[in-house]
Amino acid sequence: MFNNILIIGCGLIGSSILRASLKKKISKNYYVFEKSQKFISVIKKINKNIKFLKSLDKNLNKMDLVILGTPMSAYSKFFSSLNKNLNHNSIITDVGSTKENLINLRKKKLSKNLDWVMSHPISGSEVSGPEHGSPNLFKNKWCIIIKDRNTLKQKKIERFWKKLGSKIIIMNSDDHDKIFSVTSHLPHLIAYNLIKTAQDFQKKKNKNLIKFSAGGLRDFSRIAASNEIMWRDIFFANKTNMIDAINVFAKNLNDFKKNISRKENSKLVKKLINSKVVRKQIISQKQDISKPDFGRE
Amino acid sequence: MFNNILIIGCGLIGSSILRASLKKKISKNYYVFEKSQKFISVIKKINKNIKFLKSLDKNLNKMDLVILGTPMSAYSKFFSSLNKNLNHNSIITDVGSTKENLINLRKKKLSKNLDWVMSHPISGSEVSGPEHGSPNLFKNKWCIIIKDRNTLKQKKIERFWKKLGSKIIIMNSDDHDKIFSVTSHLPHLIAYNLIKTAQDFQKKKNKNLIKFSAGGLRDFSRIAASNEIMWRDIFFANKTNMIDAINVFAKNLNDFKKNISRKENSKLVKKLINSKVVRKQIISQKQDISKPDFGRE
Repeated sequence: MFNNILIIGCGLIGSSILRASLKKKISKNYYVFEKSQKFISVIKKINKNIKFLKSLDKNLNKMDLVILGTPMSAYSKFFSSLNKNLNHNSIITDVGSTKENLINLRKKKLSKNLDWVMSHPISGSEVSGPEHGSPNLFKNKWCIIIKDRNTLKQKKIERFWKKLGSKIIIMNSDDHDKIFSVTSHLPHLIAYNLIKTAQDFQKKKNKNLIKFSAGGLRDFSRIAASNEIMWRDIFFANKTNMIDAINVFAKNLNDFKKNISRKENSKLVKKLINSKVVRKQIISQKQDISKPDFGRE
Repeated sequence: MFNNILIIGCGLIGSSILRASLKKKISKNYYVFEKSQKFISVIKKINKNIKFLKSLDKNLNKMDLVILGTPMSAYSKFFSSLNKNLNHNSIITDVGSTKENLINLRKKKLSKNLDWVMSHPISGSEVSGPEHGSPNLFKNKWCIIIKDRNTLKQKKIERFWKKLGSKIIIMNSDDHDKIFSVTSHLPHLIAYNLIKTAQDFQKKKNKNLIKFSAGGLRDFSRIAASNEIMWRDIFFANKTNMIDAINVFAKNLNDFKKNISRKENSKLVKKLINSKVVRKQIISQKQDISKPDFGRE
């Protein structure tokens, strides 16, 4: 499919792309640009033919596909090199979790002669680093591709992710950022906020809560252990949608507080029952399994 | 250990007590008082010697241990029968998730000649009903026992739960309700609230969110599918602590909103990093495992 692929930033997602691409024989050659020596030593063990770039110079000229795999806040550093050295037939893509900010970045920083087709694979975990990567990370998971002016190159990026096992959805960047503010960014912020609240309580009351976290808190702590730089970037980049989502959440929480405070039985029970509808939809749309979870052993 | 055990209300927890008690041969005879015919037909299949009571009358006189396994709001219905028919050597216990309300109920409704030692096994799931019960539900899980005036009977209840596999902690009811408001009750309310927020958004914007719930929302939907009557009872019973916890949560969320809105980098990153400390404590105290979760297949 390609002769030369370059992955810039090879952590959990980058190394999973590398592993899946090697498995599916997507390219003749694989190049990695990675600053962390620790990461490089892990990546070397994946396959002995992976080549490591020390700088983004003339060697960029041969790349067919360049994948930005760093946290989004680092993307802007690469554009002067890309603009100078990348040839016009190549494609840039990324794996960032927000898109409106990247559309702006593209407008400001990328040469008009280059094409950046945007991707967002919906996969990941609370862990980071290439040691946790897997060739199956994208298998049967959604990958969102942002509708692009260059339809040929868009199709090529679609085929790329399909070969890695993803199911493709095309969206515009505005829809993307609105949808994921609710299904992913708000839930992460809420998990962080709940852990912060438990910490405050533990400090104030001097009681050991952690010991009893199996009753619910535990599940949130997993999500709240995700990479802080990645999530800082997402919260800032999707600021407007985040604030909208936080406002709706805060209003709903205040309503729940009133229901509890006034013991409004039927209002409260109706809302609790309604949640089960969503759970059923999530299971029927195969976003989770129905098998009950009694805690992980 | 006992001659006759009676379980009133035999759903997920009640039937798990029954299964574990049978396995550990804790009693000679097992009695169940259960209204649901559907539940009864499931329970009959557990063991052919289980006896079903049609009413709580003179047959109560022979019971050594009576376990309240219904949602807490139903407890008060049983006290006139218990006061009339239970003998003074027997012990009442329960599995309710809040305790201050039960202390008040005991004061008001229970005959001074009877003893109710309170228990709270920290185990359960988003599913309900005896078909999901398991003899191993309490294995290596905490069971909180509320410090009781009758120390002999308290010791007996401790031995009972130990035999079912639980690890015992003694607390007073006030500490219990404060701790679990943060580790369990607030997380459940937050999960319900997040699902409500996603529903509102879906309705307002007419976009299919559920399809993309794997990015975080999914994990909350599981908790928010828990039994609505049980959780209504808990939220109402632990009202004061719930409102305190909601207030701290809302204040913290407002701070996060400010950090995002003003792009306060170092303040935000510091809080995100702090969450990892709690995650590490949870794992080191064996309340969860460190194995990353990439979504359930």
